[in-house]
Amino acid sequence: MQLTDSTPNVPELLYLLHGDPTDLAEALAGMRAADVAEALRDLQPAPAAKVMAALPFDLAVQVFDEPELEGHRCEIIQQMGEKVAAPLIDAMSSDQQADLFRELPEDHRPRFLKVLDAPTREALSVLLRYRPDTAGGIMTTEFVSVPTTWTVDQTLQHISKVGRAKETVYTIYGVDPDKHTLVHVVSLRDLMMADRAKPVGEVGNRRKPLAVSPATDREEVARTISKYNLLALPVLDEGGHILGIVTVDDVIDAIVRESTEDVQKFGGMEALDEPYTEISFPRMIKKRAGWLCALFLGEMLTATAMGHFEGEIAKAVVLSLFIPLIISSGGNSGSQATSLIIRSLALREIRLSDWWRILLRELPAGLTLGIILGVIGIIRIVLWQKFGWYDYGEHWLLIAAVVGGALVGVVTFGSLAGSMLPFLLKRIGFDPASASAPFVATLVDVTGLIIYFSVAFAILRHTLLM
Amino acid sequence: MQLTDSTPNVPELLYLLHGDPTDLAEALAGMRAADVAEALRDLQPAPAAKVMAALPFDLAVQVFDEPELEGHRCEIIQQMGEKVAAPLIDAMSSDQQADLFRELPEDHRPRFLKVLDAPTREALSVLLRYRPDTAGGIMTTEFVSVPTTWTVDQTLQHISKVGRAKETVYTIYGVDPDKHTLVHVVSLRDLMMADRAKPVGEVGNRRKPLAVSPATDREEVARTISKYNLLALPVLDEGGHILGIVTVDDVIDAIVRESTEDVQKFGGMEALDEPYTEISFPRMIKKRAGWLCALFLGEMLTATAMGHFEGEIAKAVVLSLFIPLIISSGGNSGSQATSLIIRSLALREIRLSDWWRILLRELPAGLTLGIILGVIGIIRIVLWQKFGWYDYGEHWLLIAAVVGGALVGVVTFGSLAGSMLPFLLKRIGFDPASASAPFVATLVDVTGLIIYFSVAFAILRHTLLM
Repeated sequence: MQLTDSTPNVPELLYLLHGDPTDLAEALAGMRAADVAEALRDLQPAPAAKVMAALPFDLAVQVFDEPELEGHRCEIIQQMGEKVAAPLIDAMSSDQQADLFRELPEDHRPRFLKVLDAPTREALSVLLRYRPDTAGGIMTTEFVSVPTTWTVDQTLQHISKVGRAKETVYTIYGVDPDKHTLVHVVSLRDLMMADRAKPVGEVGNRRKPLAVSPATDREEVARTISKYNLLALPVLDEGGHILGIVTVDDVIDAIVRESTEDVQKFGGMEALDEPYTEISFPRMIKKRAGWLCALFLGEMLTATAMGHFEGEIAKAVVLSLFIPLIISSGGNSGSQATSLIIRSLALREIRLSDWWRILLRELPAGLTLGIILGVIGIIRIVLWQKFGWYDYGEHWLLIAAVVGGALVGVVTFGSLAGSMLPFLLKRIGFDPASASAPFVATLVDVTGLIIYFSVAFAILRHTLLM
Repeated sequence: MQLTDSTPNVPELLYLLHGDPTDLAEALAGMRAADVAEALRDLQPAPAAKVMAALPFDLAVQVFDEPELEGHRCEIIQQMGEKVAAPLIDAMSSDQQADLFRELPEDHRPRFLKVLDAPTREALSVLLRYRPDTAGGIMTTEFVSVPTTWTVDQTLQHISKVGRAKETVYTIYGVDPDKHTLVHVVSLRDLMMADRAKPVGEVGNRRKPLAVSPATDREEVARTISKYNLLALPVLDEGGHILGIVTVDDVIDAIVRESTEDVQKFGGMEALDEPYTEISFPRMIKKRAGWLCALFLGEMLTATAMGHFEGEIAKAVVLSLFIPLIISSGGNSGSQATSLIIRSLALREIRLSDWWRILLRELPAGLTLGIILGVIGIIRIVLWQKFGWYDYGEHWLLIAAVVGGALVGVVTFGSLAGSMLPFLLKRIGFDPASASAPFVATLVDVTGLIIYFSVAFAILRHTLLM
């Protein structure tokens, strides 16, 4: 509705840049951080650094905290220089600081680390140890924790004082007063409705808190937050102390990224890991060429298989007409089955051990779909022959039988191969999402040819293929 | 980490069901709603209804509020009967009530509507008017709104009183005291840190609130919530009054659902709209057979095209050996391009009007990838011939040239067709995600054959194809 009325466009920004700096600052001050970040993405680093310098400090920090600025942030910061950038970086949330330093070229990091506050530097070096696709890699260290012996009143006053600097104040972590381990999680809502004199540890539900370890995969974190409708999830060390929290907004970003990766992998390529519009040409070619070559090498087996049937084709050229039709139908049914299974595995609707249940379901499904296509294929040949649109020779009825029979076999095999490939990949330790549509199609093409020519040989060996 | 230690399994639940009901209630009372919901999914409606009856009322309401119980909820409720279920339904959040009634068979709805509170009934009939994939269809009507003239202290006390019944208390909506239109949005965090005597309207940022209309697509809502890191987004009528709010947890569910739909469509089928493990066999076949038949009919054009080249194949059977290899390479490069473009369009990285920028990028990308595959193809033929693994005849060098040339053409065409198809579909009003890998492969197969035989004719017309 009114989503875009405050978003400036790039020409506007550039115009303001060349005018009075106070005009620029004024125009930007009323904007939301996400909108400023979006506009900055379209600017070169030098003007973007100028815009950042003109922003009120609080807004500038929020802009740098936007994950949307990833990939641009580090260029802007290098443009600003470490002296100007230091207070901004210091004020960023710790998960975004870590992301920023991951983006900086290795040899520039020390220069920027040097000018930061000692505590920021220390926290950063801990966060940078975790892989970016784990809970440790996306967590932030700014959370509210209090001893469970504190009263509700004490805690609420504490939040009023320190709340500004925390990623979220809506979930409060209660720690053991002696051992400092996490023992209780309570929502701000529960605190506000509780008796002010009660100890925090006695407010809300007394269940054991949900938590993850820093090595937990971000997909797993996303699933937990989404399943339990949490606003944040604590990350604990082995002793049960809180290292940080992962908040729901980071999880949405992670879910969107994982979906992008899955779609790209399913399309038959490596995940780009950066927007299509921003990746450099050589990097994009690299991500695409690898799988394309692998699939090509696999598909070469079709030439080998075809070589074995060269004699049959020479005897009955008419058989070659249906090769693309038949093998592609197998690929299509395989692609459907794969997309279903990949997604069910990702959503944990099915487990690795369910493979035989899926097999028992895909076998009749493949047969049914194969029979449907087989009947259509037979009807097509009969119609074309009867109406004289094409002459399949004197044995046209047998040819129709070959095509129909092969379609049943190939489509059934496609469904089975397509549904089992993700399980197989997962079993041997690969990402099941690598079972791409082209991968399945390649698998099915080679087998499809063998099925087709076997059916042809069985039906035609006393006539055309004698 | 400790995610599953409180989750009961089905045999355990069934055992408890046959024992003392108080044992069951005790075992379940310590559990989280999402875990109870998960366990109930695996039970038949009758025992599930028994479990629901044994749960403490608050937990039972939370369990029914779990979107994970969708599809099962209405059977359980029908099992419980309208009298027993009424207080539970009354206490559910309004968005889940609406979902529940959408699941109920039309003829059962009046029976359950009748026993509900008048205000619940009224709110429900409003919500049921919106489509489930719009902001109106996923919003809830339980939010905290106060006149902007109220003081912070008044508002905080109000929240302490009514907070329990609201979907979220962390975002407070300030309305105009006279016109009751939304004029201000403030976070509970800002309120807690503000001077208690200040009017709510003067706390926090004074920007125009972000909002959507009830007809806004849920994908658009998800994008806004995720971009601005919101916990909730208000839904306004045309006069600017709040109809409800969409909260971040509903948005995660919507994002996950949309991803599933996109992957299934990209796999070349209709989206299932229900879990693979739960959909009935005939419904699944219906969702798959439609596209499979459409693709099959399109792919039949390959048989027609091959018919035109039957003479060429008869003269040079060796040409047929490379047909699957060449057309599948085009399909694979097309599938890659499509997955990139579909995802970029979904993430709004590119717009419809960017089609020519993409064309200018995919043309060199396709050429580069085509040349890589072409060179590999030529090397393969040369190697096989030189080492005597296969005899491609006296014109084997010309055959290698045909295969190499055709690969460049087919892969380039694949990249172009794959990248332009989503734009074309979007332009004519279809979902660009319908540009599935099999769809692109089918498109490219037919054209690929024509390219292959044209190159063959150009190179071999004085020799093999004379």
